[in-house]
Amino acid sequence: MRVAELSARADVPVPTIKYYLREGLLPRGERTGPNQASYDERHERRLRLIRALTEVGRLSIAATRDVLSSVDDPEASLDERLGRAVGSVTRAQVTAGEQERAEARRIVDELIARRGWFDTSHPARDNLVEVIAGLNGIAGEFLIAGIDRYADAVELIARVDLDVTERITDTDAVIEAAVVGTLAGDTLLAALRRLAQVNESGRRLGVS
Amino acid sequence: MRVAELSARADVPVPTIKYYLREGLLPRGERTGPNQASYDERHERRLRLIRALTEVGRLSIAATRDVLSSVDDPEASLDERLGRAVGSVTRAQVTAGEQERAEARRIVDELIARRGWFDTSHPARDNLVEVIAGLNGIAGEFLIAGIDRYADAVELIARVDLDVTERITDTDAVIEAAVVGTLAGDTLLAALRRLAQVNESGRRLGVS
Repeated sequence: MRVAELSARADVPVPTIKYYLREGLLPRGERTGPNQASYDERHERRLRLIRALTEVGRLSIAATRDVLSSVDDPEASLDERLGRAVGSVTRAQVTAGEQERAEARRIVDELIARRGWFDTSHPARDNLVEVIAGLNGIAGEFLIAGIDRYADAVELIARVDLDVTERITDTDAVIEAAVVGTLAGDTLLAALRRLAQVNESGRRLGVS
Repeated sequence: MRVAELSARADVPVPTIKYYLREGLLPRGERTGPNQASYDERHERRLRLIRALTEVGRLSIAATRDVLSSVDDPEASLDERLGRAVGSVTRAQVTAGEQERAEARRIVDELIARRGWFDTSHPARDNLVEVIAGLNGIAGEFLIAGIDRYADAVELIARVDLDVTERITDTDAVIEAAVVGTLAGDTLLAALRRLAQVNESGRRLGVS
């Protein structure tokens, strides 16, 4: 299909498509003339993925490029691609000192041991260390104090996440759904959490 | 205290403090000379809050200003300030059409009825509608299919959140802890969720 049709089908304006092509987020189409190229369903799907990452997930163009390169790596196994792609959407970058980081590492090690979780060296573990190292003050203290009850809740969430992924059979779709589901899921869960807080707060205050 | 001491105590460089003053995020100190001002503990606490919002919460300067103005409003009650401040850190802004938004509103109305949650017009409800309206494709479909199980999990999370808030007695500290705890908590929960996914995935594949 031509770029105009691609634009209409994916609901992305032509100038935006050209920007994604220049930035290397979207692979070039097949050349069919000096100023013309032909696109297919893979381009349309990629466009939807870029939109989900940048709009719902609020990733920058640079972060989106990182995620896509993990998704695309032809050398890696499905499991590696999945792990790297999902790992790449946490992006914790805090300015913590070595002491905070060592303390955070201890908290995570102990949490994993207490929960009986796999003692893995997955990037998700470093991400969690990084996030905890960035917490401080009274809020950080209380979040850490509640970490086991939060872990109970995320175990439920992870079970839903895996049930969802298992129902998808196409390999590329699995990776895309895992990336978008994780990122869009974070936003969905954050919004649900706000509403549940309002409800819990009203319940405790005796509002009816 | 002088700006140099404030900088040392809050661990924020002097040029960054001056930037926050210019941008109106940090109130001016009391003038003590033509080129000198005096700062107190409130400035130090505000600096830590700004740092938490921009670094751990990854908010832009504009979004941080919005959050702070909700926190500061002297006309509002504690409950209103709390609701507005926590509401202001969800910031869902998606380009959804009227049809997607109406469908999302229906999903949220039905969810609230099924859960027996308060039928409130709180901004958190609009935020959730906005996030759901922005979901699409296969990942969106599955997230919505799992929404009741996600709601089970966020009810647990909200209970921990409220327990934490109830233990703090100082009014300003409650609001700050709620804002930082909600925002930093989103990041913490996202990182925990990745690690729980890795564990659940390994468990299902029979890794030991």
